[in-house]
Amino acid sequence: VSEAEFLSWLYAQKKSRADVLVDVGDDLAALRWDGGDLLLVGIDQVLDGVHFDSALHPAVQIGRKAMNRNLSDCAAMACLPVAAVVSAALPRGSGIEYARELHRGLREAGEMFDCRIVGGDTSAWDGKLAMSVAIIGRSAGIDPITRAGAKVGDSIYVTGPLGGSILARHMSFTPRVELARTLASRYPISSMIDISDGLTRDLYRICQASKVSAVIESAAIPIHLDAIRLSSQDGRPAIDHALGDGEDYELIFTTGSKVEESGCVRIGEILQTDDGGASVKLSGSTEPLRPGGWDAGV
Amino acid sequence: VSEAEFLSWLYAQKKSRADVLVDVGDDLAALRWDGGDLLLVGIDQVLDGVHFDSALHPAVQIGRKAMNRNLSDCAAMACLPVAAVVSAALPRGSGIEYARELHRGLREAGEMFDCRIVGGDTSAWDGKLAMSVAIIGRSAGIDPITRAGAKVGDSIYVTGPLGGSILARHMSFTPRVELARTLASRYPISSMIDISDGLTRDLYRICQASKVSAVIESAAIPIHLDAIRLSSQDGRPAIDHALGDGEDYELIFTTGSKVEESGCVRIGEILQTDDGGASVKLSGSTEPLRPGGWDAGV
Repeated sequence: VSEAEFLSWLYAQKKSRADVLVDVGDDLAALRWDGGDLLLVGIDQVLDGVHFDSALHPAVQIGRKAMNRNLSDCAAMACLPVAAVVSAALPRGSGIEYARELHRGLREAGEMFDCRIVGGDTSAWDGKLAMSVAIIGRSAGIDPITRAGAKVGDSIYVTGPLGGSILARHMSFTPRVELARTLASRYPISSMIDISDGLTRDLYRICQASKVSAVIESAAIPIHLDAIRLSSQDGRPAIDHALGDGEDYELIFTTGSKVEESGCVRIGEILQTDDGGASVKLSGSTEPLRPGGWDAGV
Repeated sequence: VSEAEFLSWLYAQKKSRADVLVDVGDDLAALRWDGGDLLLVGIDQVLDGVHFDSALHPAVQIGRKAMNRNLSDCAAMACLPVAAVVSAALPRGSGIEYARELHRGLREAGEMFDCRIVGGDTSAWDGKLAMSVAIIGRSAGIDPITRAGAKVGDSIYVTGPLGGSILARHMSFTPRVELARTLASRYPISSMIDISDGLTRDLYRICQASKVSAVIESAAIPIHLDAIRLSSQDGRPAIDHALGDGEDYELIFTTGSKVEESGCVRIGEILQTDDGGASVKLSGSTEPLRPGGWDAGV
């Protein structure tokens, strides 16, 4: 199957949209942009053996995850997804049906949030499956929420139960785009991040960027059933999974207000930094938590 | 070496810029955008063994090529590059110095055209080096030039000599961003594309998108010295290399005007389609050229 055949199938999937002046199939796509909107942009990749296992996960799920990781970044900034471009490095001989299923996963995940695929680059190679999605979002009336705004005295919240996502959820989560917009429009959210690399590690990132520390109540952390299941398999405490596993794609946010939104749980408080700089500690402990989760050696 | 160590080095490379409100290091970057400008966006990847050979090419060259391929897409649309985001899948154990050299290549290539790297995603994996760059450009007073506007009677031009780029040039070309802007501001350019996959194949893409055919004069095609060198090595005619090799990253464009810009050569004319649809023929031949160059089987 040739790339040309895949591309002509791909171009036939186009749906016209008023703000897309030049669509998939040219050198670049061209979009009309409202100058009142800030433009948000980022990129995230999924790699075979790291973010998915091509021997286990169907192509449509892999495509969905690739898009959803980027939509989760939009949630973390409280922006609205607009458009995405995708690169795919396909193992030689994957076949056109496989490429179509990847694309279906990408497209369906994007369509949930009105996010259109407007360009891409597909190559076959003698390597493993790798996909990158770059996403464009717009502020649409809400200032982007960075990691850098957490203030001493702010409460720390998470948007749902954590841990054990590796059992299945990491392939099928729903990005918290809508919840993030609701939160940002109703409360003064001072910082936000999505949990890709683990509660401890991602909260530490907020602390670093905001030049603060954090103390969390281990009894307050919502533990996912998957963390308990995984705990019964590997004997590690479920709380460790909740703190360190990552790939939850829930949000951590800080605010000076009391937040009463479904799913949101207060887990701790922002403190001044120690002499040693930013840290994340469990309440009652003097030792900072070592960030578990993702830290791939380069 | 940990990803964290690479990232803290990376964040230290930031230079503030007025239109970048949130820079590298958050979930997404945020840019101020002038609503008078169209937003152009695309993505292009480079893969070990396809677009470069990691055993031969130094990291800085690989980074440069990854960025330059995208800048060349900006040239093909006659837009100005603004910002880029980069994903890199690094073979485990590559080392921080290698990652830095990749980044230096990306950054230096971008800086040539005031294009800033505003985000990225780096992972180590048990696979070969793969990099994707997504680029954002702005129309800045020039309507994007697509592949779809070529008219019967238009002249076909290329911006420089072709063929044999595999000898070295494919790693070190200069994207024709400035020339494209000059052309678009001085002449009514009806269609344009950059030559990544070969003169025949990329001209055919203009024909398909514009629903026209093309006839080119083989004697008029500017042949690069590299094509002649390669011809003396492999015995294939230099003109075949000029027609088919690809990775020239010169521009093909069509216009009803006579173009007198340095480097630009008229190579043929746009005709009506045959019954069989779009085609590219050599003058004097009745057989359409079979597109050589790149068509990686998926």
